[in-house]
Amino acid sequence: MPQKQVIYQQRRERVYDWMAREGISLLMIEDTEGQRDSNLRWLSGMPADALLFLSAERKALLVPWDINLAKIYANADFIRAYTEFDRLPIKACLKAALLLKIPHGSRIEIPSVTSYPRFLRFIEALTDFDVICRDNDGAAAVLEQMRAIKDEEELHLYRRAAVITNDIIDLVEKHLRTGKIKTEYDAVQLIQGECRKKRCEGTGFETLAAGPDRSMAIHCFPAYTTSQFGTTGLSILDFGVKYQGYITDITLTVAAEPTKAQERLLTLIEKAYKLALGMVQAGKTSLDIAAAVDAFFAKSGKTMPHALGHGIGLDSHEGPFLRNRNDNEWILQKGMVITIEPGLYDPRLGGCRLENDILVTENGGEELTNSRIIRL
Amino acid sequence: MPQKQVIYQQRRERVYDWMAREGISLLMIEDTEGQRDSNLRWLSGMPADALLFLSAERKALLVPWDINLAKIYANADFIRAYTEFDRLPIKACLKAALLLKIPHGSRIEIPSVTSYPRFLRFIEALTDFDVICRDNDGAAAVLEQMRAIKDEEELHLYRRAAVITNDIIDLVEKHLRTGKIKTEYDAVQLIQGECRKKRCEGTGFETLAAGPDRSMAIHCFPAYTTSQFGTTGLSILDFGVKYQGYITDITLTVAAEPTKAQERLLTLIEKAYKLALGMVQAGKTSLDIAAAVDAFFAKSGKTMPHALGHGIGLDSHEGPFLRNRNDNEWILQKGMVITIEPGLYDPRLGGCRLENDILVTENGGEELTNSRIIRL
Repeated sequence: MPQKQVIYQQRRERVYDWMAREGISLLMIEDTEGQRDSNLRWLSGMPADALLFLSAERKALLVPWDINLAKIYANADFIRAYTEFDRLPIKACLKAALLLKIPHGSRIEIPSVTSYPRFLRFIEALTDFDVICRDNDGAAAVLEQMRAIKDEEELHLYRRAAVITNDIIDLVEKHLRTGKIKTEYDAVQLIQGECRKKRCEGTGFETLAAGPDRSMAIHCFPAYTTSQFGTTGLSILDFGVKYQGYITDITLTVAAEPTKAQERLLTLIEKAYKLALGMVQAGKTSLDIAAAVDAFFAKSGKTMPHALGHGIGLDSHEGPFLRNRNDNEWILQKGMVITIEPGLYDPRLGGCRLENDILVTENGGEELTNSRIIRL
Repeated sequence: MPQKQVIYQQRRERVYDWMAREGISLLMIEDTEGQRDSNLRWLSGMPADALLFLSAERKALLVPWDINLAKIYANADFIRAYTEFDRLPIKACLKAALLLKIPHGSRIEIPSVTSYPRFLRFIEALTDFDVICRDNDGAAAVLEQMRAIKDEEELHLYRRAAVITNDIIDLVEKHLRTGKIKTEYDAVQLIQGECRKKRCEGTGFETLAAGPDRSMAIHCFPAYTTSQFGTTGLSILDFGVKYQGYITDITLTVAAEPTKAQERLLTLIEKAYKLALGMVQAGKTSLDIAAAVDAFFAKSGKTMPHALGHGIGLDSHEGPFLRNRNDNEWILQKGMVITIEPGLYDPRLGGCRLENDILVTENGGEELTNSRIIRL
């Protein structure tokens, strides 16, 4: 625990420095139902459900929904229960400004996702301050950039999370080959059980298990059922673990007695994956990699209906994003952890996706996980 | 399926009527990662990840992320893949206005949760239209009101969901008494397995299982572990099922050899629950009920750190809300389905919460679920 406390303080110092440059007197972070924000955890250790206020005077005030949990997990200079502020974010912000002695007329930055109607209410309530809400160039964007590059402690956690993930992948393959996994639910149950045994906080997200009848969906619905998995055709399993907050995210495809058309799909995916992995390197733009894969698929008349990949961390989807879209300005940097996940989905043949977690280094991409297409 | 299709159309007709009264030419609904909105499913049957545009001409355009899933689940007049719009919501909105022939200068209502910075970008891109974004009195508020009162089909689903939930509660008690449930994970696994067997889409939300060491948290973190459950002291189990989209939400407390102080806590909760249930009736304000329970706890020097309850439906938390807060204007109406969940949490004694799902009728509250405090 003590070493962790220092990490949160160090991270906050970086934010305070940025606030000083920007002339921000108070920064509000909000992680509540309907407005999740892992910056809360990254900056204070509090896993969820709290407001965090950072002041120009380099003080952190945490306002948790659950004061008992905060006492166990959180690092902050002051902790005050949310009930003291009637569980109203605007009221809490106003009181935080008082408690932290924010000078009238100074700049208060509120969350970038604040809705337009709520923004108007903030303005109305905080008339003595200059309330700002922005995404590009604001605190959210800066924190996204900071978090995209993992520090040593985070990479240490990622290596442990990857070992657990890889053990589960091997176990899934073994149980498929021995017939122990027969249904989507069997696969999910195995993964959940292993996560608990290995002291994970849980799975990284709801496991998606789609047998041959349902694998044509990008993200199958429902997430899993009791129908067959790994039987003739293509099955997709998309899962991750959450280890001390950090999420892995892999997808494996099980191909049982694939037809020639299905085999062509699998080969395309494997080639696209290798193409993308080969391009990963610090300094590369993620747009170029995503565009190369889309171009590769286009040559076979195929269209991938989703992005090539994304960063992972405390969120299962975070920066950098590997999108083939003009507004994508991400440049890969050393210490980023990303997924590469080419996928194609055919209503008749089924779907195939291959996804691994990749650490960006100066020399290329290091595969942390070893997911693959499992041919039965 | 055919009868369902009619339901979605009927619901949309109610929205079109409202749009006509408000002079709205185009209404945009968005359910995407980071901006979930079950109105999508309520109005089209599409379970997730799509945009839905409703026009004054009473046409519905669905723009799904996953076209294969949409073909199975969705009801709309037109379906166009999100990839056609580069997966950009503003671009999709602009094109939808063209496709649906929305006259220049007319009103387009975008989601109430649209962030302030994104709202500015909407305005900039849709210069030919009058873009509005509002929460109070806007489409989101109207849909929340509509959805709060369940129709016959929804109540039919709720009765089935409640039977499944009650069977699981009984099974949990049985397995606790026979020692089959020893850990938090045992309880979670039982619930997940039963949900699948009973053809639910899944659990209603991530099950929270907190043994005596962790029950002092409102919502324990992590959600569950392999530590003991149902052993000496107070354990809390908060779960629900998701049946054809509809979510139940109950909490049971297991009290094993409670001390006198713990027994006093349990009794307070049971009395608070009965007090609240006795007040439920169409026409009552939910503020009055929540205030009565808070006042009851205050007499014993206790403070409940969360609201008394909330509506349930396609969301695990939706209107009406049972909050003791001045801005709460909800009046209970026939056909609402709500939770009542008084809870108290003591760092030393542990926590206790009792939560059931209640159908509001003209004569009172009908308990759909039969959760209880289980004394071992």
